[in-house]
Amino acid sequence: MAELAQRRGACIVSDDPYLYFARVTQLWRRRFISVRPAGVHAQAVIEPGAWVHPTAYVGPFCLVEAGARIDAGTVLKSRVTVGRDCTVGSGCILHSGVVIGSDGFGFANSEEGWVKIEQLGAVRIGRDVEIGANTCVDRGALQDTIIDDGVKLDNLIQIGHNVYIGSHSALAGCVGVAGSARIGSHCTLGGGAIVLGHLEIADHVHISAASVVTRSIRRPGNYTGIFPLDDNAAWERNAASLKQLGGLRDRLRALEQFHKNQERR
Amino acid sequence: MAELAQRRGACIVSDDPYLYFARVTQLWRRRFISVRPAGVHAQAVIEPGAWVHPTAYVGPFCLVEAGARIDAGTVLKSRVTVGRDCTVGSGCILHSGVVIGSDGFGFANSEEGWVKIEQLGAVRIGRDVEIGANTCVDRGALQDTIIDDGVKLDNLIQIGHNVYIGSHSALAGCVGVAGSARIGSHCTLGGGAIVLGHLEIADHVHISAASVVTRSIRRPGNYTGIFPLDDNAAWERNAASLKQLGGLRDRLRALEQFHKNQERR
Amino acid sequence: MAELAQRRGACIVSDDPYLYFARVTQLWRRRFISVRPAGVHAQAVIEPGAWVHPTAYVGPFCLVEAGARIDAGTVLKSRVTVGRDCTVGSGCILHSGVVIGSDGFGFANSEEGWVKIEQLGAVRIGRDVEIGANTCVDRGALQDTIIDDGVKLDNLIQIGHNVYIGSHSALAGCVGVAGSARIGSHCTLGGGAIVLGHLEIADHVHISAASVVTRSIRRPGNYTGIFPLDDNAAWERNAASLKQLGGLRDRLRALEQFHKNQERR
Repeated sequence: MAELAQRRGACIVSDDPYLYFARVTQLWRRRFISVRPAGVHAQAVIEPGAWVHPTAYVGPFCLVEAGARIDAGTVLKSRVTVGRDCTVGSGCILHSGVVIGSDGFGFANSEEGWVKIEQLGAVRIGRDVEIGANTCVDRGALQDTIIDDGVKLDNLIQIGHNVYIGSHSALAGCVGVAGSARIGSHCTLGGGAIVLGHLEIADHVHISAASVVTRSIRRPGNYTGIFPLDDNAAWERNAASLKQLGGLRDRLRALEQFHKNQERR
Repeated sequence: MAELAQRRGACIVSDDPYLYFARVTQLWRRRFISVRPAGVHAQAVIEPGAWVHPTAYVGPFCLVEAGARIDAGTVLKSRVTVGRDCTVGSGCILHSGVVIGSDGFGFANSEEGWVKIEQLGAVRIGRDVEIGANTCVDRGALQDTIIDDGVKLDNLIQIGHNVYIGSHSALAGCVGVAGSARIGSHCTLGGGAIVLGHLEIADHVHISAASVVTRSIRRPGNYTGIFPLDDNAAWERNAASLKQLGGLRDRLRALEQFHKNQERR
Repeated sequence: MAELAQRRGACIVSDDPYLYFARVTQLWRRRFISVRPAGVHAQAVIEPGAWVHPTAYVGPFCLVEAGARIDAGTVLKSRVTVGRDCTVGSGCILHSGVVIGSDGFGFANSEEGWVKIEQLGAVRIGRDVEIGANTCVDRGALQDTIIDDGVKLDNLIQIGHNVYIGSHSALAGCVGVAGSARIGSHCTLGGGAIVLGHLEIADHVHISAASVVTRSIRRPGNYTGIFPLDDNAAWERNAASLKQLGGLRDRLRALEQFHKNQERR
């Protein structure tokens, strides 16, 4: 998942050798690795009312529920679930264990405990989207969850209900995006980053790995929030001081004030 | 997964419009979406010695192992594994890819490497529990892992062996709870939060997203531990200073002492 | 997942009672729990050109793709995918939902969006490796991703492409290791830890839960980077001060300079 961050804009010999390398790997694959046939594996389940394009591939132990649509050339590797009424555009790759259209996490509090808010929306996935192994995309509560064209999701990512992810954004492994967050186009999120619910992130925003987005980000740029790693002893000392940081600030201010007063005298 | 945090206690027009909304979505679903039939899908595997209530539903590619019990009205969506001797109460929903009863992560160190501690307990899940897509609940080492009535677990959550989660607690996506932790009733854990092993969390404790619980929490309340997000340049400057924080504290103390000594003179 | 950290070196009555306990659980299991038969479940798919040792077990809804090899005594519980050309050594346990050999997350940027770098390597897993439920190991881009002998991976872990994990290292739940990282032997990573791409970690390094490794670690030892948990009000005050920390440092330095100048006078 670092590949993405490390290579952005790499340019050494050709105009763009990394892009050139990508094209070579594609040639190599077509030349030496047998291409998967189109069609539906005998061990897959396509519910009545689902629609799979003849050029798409649905692998073993996949489930495509009623009302779902899988468009041209899209590949569902193995053990992929595409839930009721969800749509996957053309040219997508969904890796093993992906779940599209699980219920969003919505409950109302009551005297008797949590009351389920039925999730009545679906998931709409654009074209040329790749979704990594065991990643989950929840269906919307009323409207749909939307993953726009060209988005790349790595493994073990959680996308909450009613999230919108703009075109060509790329999210690395273990990212969590909470419900109703809106992520712009051409963004990147490093591995393990968390985006809280109902926030908006502008286009061309890059979040470092393991950082937590707690407020909307209106301007393109690079953002980070990681506690720096240290050996245990040093960390313990600094972490203890951190808890007194507000106090340290006040004490420093008092000293400064004292000096100012002295100078006035 | 933000839904939970954002809406707690929302109250605008009716006594509790959010609860009212939940009831409406349930009516809508019953009215317009075909309800899943009870029974076991032809592509599911129920091992001999497992028991599934006639009103429960077991979807395609599910596995219910020997000795496991699935109670009345419970739904296993698709690709759900309920391991040997594990029990799921009535009215539960287990979303696609859920694993109940994988081995807890227990090993003893030896000269030849890690020696496996066989996990001889099981998992007991109460009634009205909902478990999100690709979430895992490990079986106990000797006693059972317990998820109490009305608990709601979001997607991609890891529950370690011998964990206890009290009734009506709700955990958002990507949470990890390490082995033998005890979480009280009516707690909420924000997305990506981590609870270390062998800790106890009291009832009505609310942990913010991405926070790490490193000690037991005895009192109800809201707790947070997140490094604030900043643009890269500002973060780098502050993170560098953070590593000298213990030193800063000592230098500030020295200055204060100097002033005290001056005043005495 | 805490088991590991808490019990290291525990030694109370016998020479090593925890190791003794592990042996007892193994005896108990053999005595009282029916041992799984070897062989391939009727509901598993073994592609032509894959090879499964006669003493291995492949459970329901598993897929072993062409060119893959599963060695003696290895157990694939249920819903495990071992991708094209990937090898799993002898005596391994792969829990439900594991994905071995999903595509690494590699894309080159172009005018038209991300261009896929075909992942032409595979995954090689040594012997006596245990891999937890829903954990993913990506195939390498050109060379292979390697998990060495005796490694233990907990649930919901993401291992990126071209990663190397040295023998007898143990990674707790929800860990993410980004592409091309090299982790030494006998290391432990606490739950939710993140290792950035292209880093090297020496042997016998122990990373605390939820810590982020942002630079290579050359020396054995214990390392931590966690923002300490606090009640919300205290956290807010300290987090606000944290954003001014660079400034606080400068102001403290100015005060110290002022004193030095005074003394000189």
